[in-house]
Amino acid sequence: MANKVQPKILPGFMELLPEDQILFNSMVDKIRSVYEKFGFLPLDTPVIEYSEILLAKAGGETEKQIYRFNKGDNDLSLRFDLTVPLARYVAQRYPYLTFPFKRYQIGKVFRGERPQKGRFREFYQCDIDVIGNENLPLVYDAEIPAIIYAIFKELDFGPFIIRINNRKVLNGFFKSLDLTDEATEILRIIDKIDKIGEDNVKEELTDMHIDAQKIETILSFIRIKGSNEEIIKSLKNNGINDETYLEGVNELEEVIKLISSFGLDKDAYTIDLTIARGLDYYTGTVYETNLKEYPKLGSICSGGRYENLTGYYTDQKLPGIGISIGLTRLFSQLKEEGIISTTKKSLIDTLIVPLDEENMDYVLEVANRLRDKGLKADVYYGTKGMKQKMKYADKLGVPYVIVIGSDEVSNKVVTLKNMVTGEQEVVQIDSLTSKFC
Amino acid sequence: MANKVQPKILPGFMELLPEDQILFNSMVDKIRSVYEKFGFLPLDTPVIEYSEILLAKAGGETEKQIYRFNKGDNDLSLRFDLTVPLARYVAQRYPYLTFPFKRYQIGKVFRGERPQKGRFREFYQCDIDVIGNENLPLVYDAEIPAIIYAIFKELDFGPFIIRINNRKVLNGFFKSLDLTDEATEILRIIDKIDKIGEDNVKEELTDMHIDAQKIETILSFIRIKGSNEEIIKSLKNNGINDETYLEGVNELEEVIKLISSFGLDKDAYTIDLTIARGLDYYTGTVYETNLKEYPKLGSICSGGRYENLTGYYTDQKLPGIGISIGLTRLFSQLKEEGIISTTKKSLIDTLIVPLDEENMDYVLEVANRLRDKGLKADVYYGTKGMKQKMKYADKLGVPYVIVIGSDEVSNKVVTLKNMVTGEQEVVQIDSLTSKFC
Repeated sequence: MANKVQPKILPGFMELLPEDQILFNSMVDKIRSVYEKFGFLPLDTPVIEYSEILLAKAGGETEKQIYRFNKGDNDLSLRFDLTVPLARYVAQRYPYLTFPFKRYQIGKVFRGERPQKGRFREFYQCDIDVIGNENLPLVYDAEIPAIIYAIFKELDFGPFIIRINNRKVLNGFFKSLDLTDEATEILRIIDKIDKIGEDNVKEELTDMHIDAQKIETILSFIRIKGSNEEIIKSLKNNGINDETYLEGVNELEEVIKLISSFGLDKDAYTIDLTIARGLDYYTGTVYETNLKEYPKLGSICSGGRYENLTGYYTDQKLPGIGISIGLTRLFSQLKEEGIISTTKKSLIDTLIVPLDEENMDYVLEVANRLRDKGLKADVYYGTKGMKQKMKYADKLGVPYVIVIGSDEVSNKVVTLKNMVTGEQEVVQIDSLTSKFC
Repeated sequence: MANKVQPKILPGFMELLPEDQILFNSMVDKIRSVYEKFGFLPLDTPVIEYSEILLAKAGGETEKQIYRFNKGDNDLSLRFDLTVPLARYVAQRYPYLTFPFKRYQIGKVFRGERPQKGRFREFYQCDIDVIGNENLPLVYDAEIPAIIYAIFKELDFGPFIIRINNRKVLNGFFKSLDLTDEATEILRIIDKIDKIGEDNVKEELTDMHIDAQKIETILSFIRIKGSNEEIIKSLKNNGINDETYLEGVNELEEVIKLISSFGLDKDAYTIDLTIARGLDYYTGTVYETNLKEYPKLGSICSGGRYENLTGYYTDQKLPGIGISIGLTRLFSQLKEEGIISTTKKSLIDTLIVPLDEENMDYVLEVANRLRDKGLKADVYYGTKGMKQKMKYADKLGVPYVIVIGSDEVSNKVVTLKNMVTGEQEVVQIDSLTSKFC
């Protein structure tokens, strides 16, 4: 045993101390709870899948980043998102599912990127998708912002804004400029406008040999501002008659109306014509979400509507809509910005400290009573002195300590110490649990 | 898109339909809840670690089964259990942890075994461990069965028995027979006694060239039966004076006494001298748990005490005790035996069915009210006829359907249909949530 292996983990992998893990888990629990409140069903797909499944669509960056290896005769990969496994799942389990199929999945995905600040190689995604059979009503496009709204109200990171756009509006607009072939590249450039600014966007568009007048039209288009109603009005009255464009504008108008029926605060959502979300995946409504006071965090919850989830695996036409929260990165950013901080070092409601080893029956009876009432109670079994015992309670940030010595046992009481105020009181064992309710 | 990839997953990987996933998750939640009630802290270590870390101890089967691959310059592996990552974690984070360190981790582990019935290549382990700094009081050896007891009471799979032994008793016993070098192999054979029977154990021991009298002594030793008190008495009075043996008997006696202080039913735990648990890892108390009515399932929760968790990574002496539930295998077995079955096809408390698309404001107000009260409410947005809508509710096994048409809107009511009894009633919107409490 002389040669020790240095204990370490890979860069780009988040591993937390217990107090941070408690905080992280409380976020996961809140997200899960909102997903379930809106009727989503849980799903858990394998971490390892056949490479041909996961890479059916992928190319470029994904192929480079994926963790891929052989085991026996199998060419295997670790999932790099939760969408491809969902597509495979829905195609495979189609006869057993009820549509619209609403599922959530919260799990780790893996991308072997170069490690850099804010990038993780292993990270949690918290996804929901609604999958329709052949079609999916537009009202789901409004339910999604209602879910984002419920989540970030619950998570309570401060004011946030859900930015909404429609890919048909964008696609139709570029078609009307005879820039359909360039649309993907233009959208990619527009997508960066918050990061690089309008001047750089203009320069990059010029580099693409788009003529100056069209660039001006593009820029004045994405400059359209105002209330949602005003933006819709501008979009309707700017003389573009492309069919896709008009369909998109109508969808956008309808979705915005429906969102208000969901009871969202007016200042929590807005049309934003600059967001495009990815390149060719989304085909309708798209979303991004930002913390108003921390724009530099970028979008903290994004997604949109797509025409067909499972095209690589089946002929069924299964349109869907979904969002994803990259929770590992978000958690890391929120911690760094001081938006969240550790509050609980332990989950327990109380620590029971026996003064000696004699009265274990009584000590454990007290512990059992508390746990039977759903309380989290730990017992310090160490034989060290009182000072050590209280130090343990302090280090774990325990709110209440229950001290039990022979006096307490004889009188069927406990001494309950509030660790915040320092106050202590003698409590009858029969009324103890009520102290925590 | 002509070439479709056939959607499938690898053999040996469990993937569930939503109704089974709901059942599985409810088991995870119950286990987690008990772990937290006993004061355990959550932990989540990376799925991917350096191979030299994960294989610091391993050899033989583990090396063959592990998923190992290179990415860039790194030799990486997927974790094959949660114990080795815990050891690395504790060694690495030592200064930041409070001891005794009680942690739980529920997560997937990976073993590339040949696929066979009941064996999984990716499976959940639900682990707890208590790690002491230099030492760990014996009372934790009794708390562990109390936790196992609380879990299987909560999970409610029927009567179970926690079988308890002590490795010092076994080791000391074999030393007294001058069979210390053979002990590991003898223990391995004894470990199989439930599977292969006493005669085969005898035969295998004979094959090891152990003389007949010693075999008889071994067999009469593991044949010791009776109440826990009677077994302790037999162990004390069988003339063995080996120091380790006597220490083990004393520990066993003390642990059994302490367990009764934890309030466990007498028929839920027993000393069983045949269980040995692994070969060289455990050094004190060991546990197995069986369902009394389904012995063939084997142990459903096992563990024990070990002298030093982190020997491969650090010089700190960190003794511990822990248990593990292999939940994927257990779930699969329980389903197959019909001990558990799917009861909920959905998590929702109610499905709201609008009769038309006109009254969305009212429909969504009802949904919001329910969700604000913590209820899980889904809305069926499809525009198909009433028959289709009720079919959807049926397929999801929804307990209550709320029907909303224009009459309901005018009167500020809803029609609430109990899907089990078929009864329906008109309910004022203000008193609706009370119907679910």
